[in-house]
Amino acid sequence: MSNKPRTVFIVSDGTGITAETFSHSILAQFEAEFKFIRIPFVDSIDKALEAKSEINANASRFEEKPIIFTTLVNSDINHIISQSNGMILDMFHTFISPLEKMLGVKSTHAIGQFHQNIDTQGYKNRIEAINFSLAHDDGQSHKNLKDAAVILVGVSRSGKTPTSLYLAMQYGIKSANYPLIPDDFERGNLPHEIQQFTNKLFGLTINPMRLSEIRNERRPGSKYANLENCRYEVSEAEEMMKKVHIPTISSTHKSIEEIATTILQHIRKDSKSYY
Amino acid sequence: MSNKPRTVFIVSDGTGITAETFSHSILAQFEAEFKFIRIPFVDSIDKALEAKSEINANASRFEEKPIIFTTLVNSDINHIISQSNGMILDMFHTFISPLEKMLGVKSTHAIGQFHQNIDTQGYKNRIEAINFSLAHDDGQSHKNLKDAAVILVGVSRSGKTPTSLYLAMQYGIKSANYPLIPDDFERGNLPHEIQQFTNKLFGLTINPMRLSEIRNERRPGSKYANLENCRYEVSEAEEMMKKVHIPTISSTHKSIEEIATTILQHIRKDSKSYY
Repeated sequence: MSNKPRTVFIVSDGTGITAETFSHSILAQFEAEFKFIRIPFVDSIDKALEAKSEINANASRFEEKPIIFTTLVNSDINHIISQSNGMILDMFHTFISPLEKMLGVKSTHAIGQFHQNIDTQGYKNRIEAINFSLAHDDGQSHKNLKDAAVILVGVSRSGKTPTSLYLAMQYGIKSANYPLIPDDFERGNLPHEIQQFTNKLFGLTINPMRLSEIRNERRPGSKYANLENCRYEVSEAEEMMKKVHIPTISSTHKSIEEIATTILQHIRKDSKSYY
Repeated sequence: MSNKPRTVFIVSDGTGITAETFSHSILAQFEAEFKFIRIPFVDSIDKALEAKSEINANASRFEEKPIIFTTLVNSDINHIISQSNGMILDMFHTFISPLEKMLGVKSTHAIGQFHQNIDTQGYKNRIEAINFSLAHDDGQSHKNLKDAAVILVGVSRSGKTPTSLYLAMQYGIKSANYPLIPDDFERGNLPHEIQQFTNKLFGLTINPMRLSEIRNERRPGSKYANLENCRYEVSEAEEMMKKVHIPTISSTHKSIEEIATTILQHIRKDSKSYY
């Protein structure tokens, strides 16, 4: 019998992506290794029985019982998985029962509610925002910049592109991004095209040593990646951001998700709500 | 006193994005309207007291008590929020206690574990994959196509770009995408550059009427958007996919997340696991 790592199953009638992300987060609280197996689209009795077999086969192969996160709306399907050989953490029913009590109504128990409906305005906004962010990546276009909810500025490789795309994909936010380059620093002014949009600008900055590392991965030994040059660009960019009074965040130790959340706090009128 | 919609707070010591997505999914089970307010980065007593005040102000302004989803690792912070005037759904402690029992160890209770650490290989892979997918969007480059885990093919506007970017952003999967265009259909062959990679290809198809709608939003009244032309392109593309025996999925009624999950099932060797 093999011992480790312990297997974690995520069993869902939808994609299971949210449950999977959650299981990663919560298990990161333990100093142990886990192997994650997601079983998506378990929306029939047959698929439930198949998933149960797979879980039980795993349970008998390893010394440590698997952990099973479930988001299964249908009671019959849920019942089958709940009898698998492992520890069940039921993300759906754990919360749905107290919510039903509080709201004083039964839930619809509709499979398919749990995944994103592509006919909603929210979903259409996401697709449209992805197209917008791609068209306005790296200053490629200044057409329709007035439609952007935010325009990220910063030196090359400060994290503008992934942040723009994340804002679009997760929140349907039209985000453009514009690089600040040595030409701008010599002229001592923001790129002409974005000067009228200072109220939409958000600056990304970065530690010059980290920037040099990142640039060296792309163009080893170049002037572009040189530490002195990175120091110069970052210092000039920061000065320019200060001069035009725009909010700024350092991407040095922050994930895309954290940067996006901070930007959202600024651009939402009530600073915290969304949708 | 105003009545609806009921407010849902998401209070987290990190970004709260996972909890927010989860709360949307679970509340979609109820036929009611909700207003979501996310309060991120609640990682100090002061911020907890501030969040509690905001929640209580909401509770006294509206007839219906707010619902409060929390992911707060620190017990003192969690205790403050748990005394807010509303219904608490504690996503952290609900699951951490049974896990501690089962695993026979205490969790680290470290704030910051709950959010993505940018120094991990997984995070670096995501950023690298985003750059790869952007460079290989819409057949822009065929350099390093051998490094792609998957190459999506399909007619223009069948959903290749958002799916590629999602695979990169969520899973760190290097995904290229190549359009199938009338030139290819006339020649009766896949684009030359991808012919050697049929084992990496995954086809996206789409209902011609839906395609025509999407294209008409971009270029109203064009031949490109014309229903007959869409029928022709889709039928030719499907025939080509069949001829080269590649797996195919229709994007007509599927979200990016569902398409990505289906693709992952195909490209993962063991068809379900990942990471």
